[in-house]
Amino acid sequence: MRLTILTTGGTIEKTYNERDGSLRNYHTILPQMLSTLRLPDLEVTYEQVVFKDSLEMTSADRARILEATREARRRSDAVVILHGTDTLAETGSLLDRELSPLGVPVILTGAMRPYEFRDTDALQNVTEALLAAKLVPAGVYVAMHNRVLRFPDVVKDRERLTFRKP
Amino acid sequence: MRLTILTTGGTIEKTYNERDGSLRNYHTILPQMLSTLRLPDLEVTYEQVVFKDSLEMTSADRARILEATREARRRSDAVVILHGTDTLAETGSLLDRELSPLGVPVILTGAMRPYEFRDTDALQNVTEALLAAKLVPAGVYVAMHNRVLRFPDVVKDRERLTFRKP
Amino acid sequence: MRLTILTTGGTIEKTYNERDGSLRNYHTILPQMLSTLRLPDLEVTYEQVVFKDSLEMTSADRARILEATREARRRSDAVVILHGTDTLAETGSLLDRELSPLGVPVILTGAMRPYEFRDTDALQNVTEALLAAKLVPAGVYVAMHNRVLRFPDVVKDRERLTFRKP
Amino acid sequence: MRLTILTTGGTIEKTYNERDGSLRNYHTILPQMLSTLRLPDLEVTYEQVVFKDSLEMTSADRARILEATREARRRSDAVVILHGTDTLAETGSLLDRELSPLGVPVILTGAMRPYEFRDTDALQNVTEALLAAKLVPAGVYVAMHNRVLRFPDVVKDRERLTFRKP
Repeated sequence: MRLTILTTGGTIEKTYNERDGSLRNYHTILPQMLSTLRLPDLEVTYEQVVFKDSLEMTSADRARILEATREARRRSDAVVILHGTDTLAETGSLLDRELSPLGVPVILTGAMRPYEFRDTDALQNVTEALLAAKLVPAGVYVAMHNRVLRFPDVVKDRERLTFRKP
Repeated sequence: MRLTILTTGGTIEKTYNERDGSLRNYHTILPQMLSTLRLPDLEVTYEQVVFKDSLEMTSADRARILEATREARRRSDAVVILHGTDTLAETGSLLDRELSPLGVPVILTGAMRPYEFRDTDALQNVTEALLAAKLVPAGVYVAMHNRVLRFPDVVKDRERLTFRKP
Repeated sequence: MRLTILTTGGTIEKTYNERDGSLRNYHTILPQMLSTLRLPDLEVTYEQVVFKDSLEMTSADRARILEATREARRRSDAVVILHGTDTLAETGSLLDRELSPLGVPVILTGAMRPYEFRDTDALQNVTEALLAAKLVPAGVYVAMHNRVLRFPDVVKDRERLTFRKP
Repeated sequence: MRLTILTTGGTIEKTYNERDGSLRNYHTILPQMLSTLRLPDLEVTYEQVVFKDSLEMTSADRARILEATREARRRSDAVVILHGTDTLAETGSLLDRELSPLGVPVILTGAMRPYEFRDTDALQNVTEALLAAKLVPAGVYVAMHNRVLRFPDVVKDRERLTFRKP
């Protein structure tokens, strides 16, 4: 199965800078994450589309994600997108609205705690996104915390720090 | 969602004994594994049915797993079974043959490397089994290494150390 | 051996807040760190003296650390102090100047990367500080990165991100 | 500082074989262990002298360790030896008896739980051995569990699973 992973940054990919003590989107750690998983069936290609905290995403950034997803679905059986959780629902709604009919599953995911931390939820969420990519019909979804929710009408639950249907 | 996890031991649950240097099925580490995952929707109950290397399983052990699965599906929306990989396919075939119609998904999983090791595949496989339990229709499956395979006709690939269809 | 550990915060004890994405000195993780080490000889007591980024330490904070160290050495065979690295050398110099004769080893340590990160140097440095506390004569030291340096005349090497003699 | 590390195998370096489920001394993981530590002062060279469970060591094996240590001290400021704990005291006594005067510190260490396990004591013990190598006078020692004990008269405490003086 050919899978394209688009990374856009967000909490999941924030890394620590020892010189100034900051935690930011410096570089992707997607290859490290993937190297810890066993994925014998997947031919993965990945691409860094934008790379920032999703609170700082502009509509131009979202247009680039839309365009990259449009391209990726042509050459892939599924698309996974790493994204900051704060505006993930906004991007998901846009993709759902603009990319119809989709043809392939497009799964967004991210994390509440960066991958570099011991107690991260990043690996759980990426594992779930990669499995959902094989199991669900064409559509735009968020996969996180043992849930796969289909757009539209997905919101971040800021109280419980996860995603839900309204 | 009400989920029952039945553990039967196997490599995934082998732990190290510092007194004699052995690696065996001493006690379940399922609670530790689950505590590292975020599962806001699941009401999990778990039960230790048998607890051994699956090469040592007798037909009486398999009859107990069959009976425990029959019971569990009555009070659960899905059943996950931790099992040694060496005879997982044998148990899966038995459940598939004897429990028709199933009514709920029954997902077997395990690991090639025990959970206690740094480079284990246990968390990936358990994460996948717990997600498959929500996504697939009633049936008996193995979930492992980004694959969800439905019984019958599932075999362990002893060369590549995973499961596949023949 | 009776050991007192004073924590003052700093990078080593910064933890992640999932609500706002900040990395700060919220609460001590000293008990978690110690629980991963095997210390059959040590009777450890610990105390949170101040708890902040060491760049924000005031002279009043340093006076409290001085006083806490003075107290701790009366009831302990050695004292270990967790401290931010940015002004660790300043606190070490103060203790060295004001606490003569010391009577016991006083070992400062910290980390370039918080304990909560996978690739932290926190456990190495704490392990070294706890061993130095048993091996060195009375005096004020920093233990970090396989070095034990005695005050006065210890500086942070901001290029190589460690401590050295000038 | 020039340090030679001799590895002889033992529990610390046992690794898991996914094909047969065994835990044995297959290959050294010393480079992986060292890569997780920050050692800016050390020029480390290492050598695999013998490689086995220390219960299987013969007197010929011990003679090779003695010879390798004799060689290593000529070109090093200190020598660290990884060794199985079951007969570590026997090897330490031999080195202490035969290598007088030593000229440099020789520090033996090992682990009760292999490095590949999450809850290993391997990194603590190696960290301690590498620091003891810088702090103690010439002599043969075991460094483990926050203790540095000088030969002769060191025994494994099989009840508490550590080393002690009789």
